[in-house]
Amino acid sequence: MKIYGDSISGNCLKVKWVCDRLALPYAWIAVDVVKQETRTPEFLALNSAGQVPVVELDDGRTLAQSNAIIRYLARGSTLIPADAFAAAKMDEWLFWEQYSHEPYIAVCRFHMRYLGKAASQLDPDRVQRGYAALERMEQHLAATRFLVGDAFSLADVALLAYTRLAHEGGFDLARYRSIRRWIKDSEAQLGLSPAP
Amino acid sequence: MKIYGDSISGNCLKVKWVCDRLALPYAWIAVDVVKQETRTPEFLALNSAGQVPVVELDDGRTLAQSNAIIRYLARGSTLIPADAFAAAKMDEWLFWEQYSHEPYIAVCRFHMRYLGKAASQLDPDRVQRGYAALERMEQHLAATRFLVGDAFSLADVALLAYTRLAHEGGFDLARYRSIRRWIKDSEAQLGLSPAP
Repeated sequence: MKIYGDSISGNCLKVKWVCDRLALPYAWIAVDVVKQETRTPEFLALNSAGQVPVVELDDGRTLAQSNAIIRYLARGSTLIPADAFAAAKMDEWLFWEQYSHEPYIAVCRFHMRYLGKAASQLDPDRVQRGYAALERMEQHLAATRFLVGDAFSLADVALLAYTRLAHEGGFDLARYRSIRRWIKDSEAQLGLSPAP
Repeated sequence: MKIYGDSISGNCLKVKWVCDRLALPYAWIAVDVVKQETRTPEFLALNSAGQVPVVELDDGRTLAQSNAIIRYLARGSTLIPADAFAAAKMDEWLFWEQYSHEPYIAVCRFHMRYLGKAASQLDPDRVQRGYAALERMEQHLAATRFLVGDAFSLADVALLAYTRLAHEGGFDLARYRSIRRWIKDSEAQLGLSPAP
């Protein structure tokens, strides 16, 4: 299997982390997002949405959308709860991440870290919505070890990707004690060094 | 089961359609989004994200995020492909819908139809991204009957919700012949009258 990804992208790292955790072999094909390598005809043939990550199976079939990919790769593993309702709660977090977290936290980080904007140049609405997402996670994680109860799942993988880098988008994580505890626990589950 | 929803919301209608198609009994509890009834303490206790739809099972457990809900309710039915890779391609469309389609097409519609904006007052970037989403669907649907091959699935349910109403957000569907064919086929699958 090939993973087409950019290591600056949390969405791409989700796929790498799941493969590493489940010992699934892969070749990492570097695609530079900042250089717009996702817009070449060759790349658009892999994913007409022009987004990384994409995985290409050994038979040539391709799959995109980070959360769809990790859901596919982790099927049958403990990263997806066996109980149907718990798996649905995991899905709730996966969809929420893409709609209410990533467009604010990941995008602010991209603007600051890779487009050179200052924090004061960020869209205030985006910043406010990013903090709303962090507030919601903090409230939830004050009561549970991981996002879906006591067991580490794909919900944690997906939310970890950009939450651990939120400070690079100008977000102050110091005020979120439960989130910081959960980041440590989740990084430990994945064998990751603490985010810089 | 109770569905908390607003019938002006395509995200809520997805849940209703799946229940109707699978003959799952439910009570529909109307929540007025425009009147901000999703921001009351009572509603936030159901879903701290303050979004409809939410389903409440008979035992009191709640589930949010339209695509997570329909995935849960339709488990074991033909609306989810039995083949794991085909189900993953369905998931790819579900996540793409929430990230690359709904924030543009549904939001433009909401601004025009419910906030009283003229088409000329819409955010041009949102309009452009909405058309990019429609272009991608058109290309894909020129080659397949439904989004995941020949079988109607949750991918079609999710994308139908706002695509059939795109004209209410100022989008011109006349130029998308394959999308219009697919809307008719999908509406027929769900027993819906054509969108007004």
